[in-house]
Amino acid sequence: MEKKNSVYIATSLDGYIADRNGGIAWLDSIQIPENEDMGYVNFTNEIDAMVMGRYTFETVLGFDVNWPYKKPVFVLSNSLNEIPESHRKKAYLVKGTVPQILEQIHNQGCTRLYIDGGVTIQSFLKEDLIDEMIITFFPILLGGGPTLFSDLPGTLQFELVESKVYFNQLVQQHFRRNRKD
Amino acid sequence: MEKKNSVYIATSLDGYIADRNGGIAWLDSIQIPENEDMGYVNFTNEIDAMVMGRYTFETVLGFDVNWPYKKPVFVLSNSLNEIPESHRKKAYLVKGTVPQILEQIHNQGCTRLYIDGGVTIQSFLKEDLIDEMIITFFPILLGGGPTLFSDLPGTLQFELVESKVYFNQLVQQHFRRNRKD
Repeated sequence: MEKKNSVYIATSLDGYIADRNGGIAWLDSIQIPENEDMGYVNFTNEIDAMVMGRYTFETVLGFDVNWPYKKPVFVLSNSLNEIPESHRKKAYLVKGTVPQILEQIHNQGCTRLYIDGGVTIQSFLKEDLIDEMIITFFPILLGGGPTLFSDLPGTLQFELVESKVYFNQLVQQHFRRNRKD
Repeated sequence: MEKKNSVYIATSLDGYIADRNGGIAWLDSIQIPENEDMGYVNFTNEIDAMVMGRYTFETVLGFDVNWPYKKPVFVLSNSLNEIPESHRKKAYLVKGTVPQILEQIHNQGCTRLYIDGGVTIQSFLKEDLIDEMIITFFPILLGGGPTLFSDLPGTLQFELVESKVYFNQLVQQHFRRNRKD
């Protein structure tokens, strides 16, 4: 079975995934037509499950929308004790180090994973466990907020698979980890 | 006379312009053909002068190459007392706040400026004095080092002018500041 950990995320030019107050109104700075998903559905069709941290999970729960995910969501948290009853068949708590939680998830038959949320992405990158990143750059400097990337123990070389421009304003770069060197 | 402050720089995916030791060997992670300048000559043909900080100036002096700039270079430093004698007809010391040094430079007939070096770019951005940025993204995570961007007092919206892929690996995004909002 193919094992792959993928990132699909939007960032400001200066590498923030939310503004200083955790807000994402800046995503509306570019008008995106309703029928354009920028490859999101194709991307999620190719994954078995999502992995996110408690903060992202609770942020999504706080949105005034229906639960947006069709695939199982594994919530990586060592502080949360249980998933709220309303979401018990949709989200599952996993605890431990990144390699440990990956093993638990793989054992449930989910091997192509969508890794989401800055902190979780950073934990995976620190272990060199991200294989693919699809990053959409918004032409804005936010000047502060939670970052997409953080310190790493060493450099990680990727290769560009594709770069696409959407609506003349957004540049979506698709990378694959190059572990050859 | 057109007044324009432009940035032309390479960055890692995680927003570093040099590695933890100030090194730029990672720029060699992608093979760049000798005859391809990625628009650099065209860009520099359209500027009157460069503006850089003491650190960038001394870094370039330390390279084992001939002085690489054809246009006057203004070195922004409040600590440096004079330009080394070897470079007195090539580089000029300017002191003061960013608006003050801009006025000094404009008064010398140089109005289309290439702003270089992380600290100098950041000082200009804090005053919303960058009009154009040409940023080449290398598909690598460096994990630490001096950053291209830093905290800003507010968000700055840009618009994408163009995005080009070089050698299937580098994505060069060209932005213009959008002050309409």
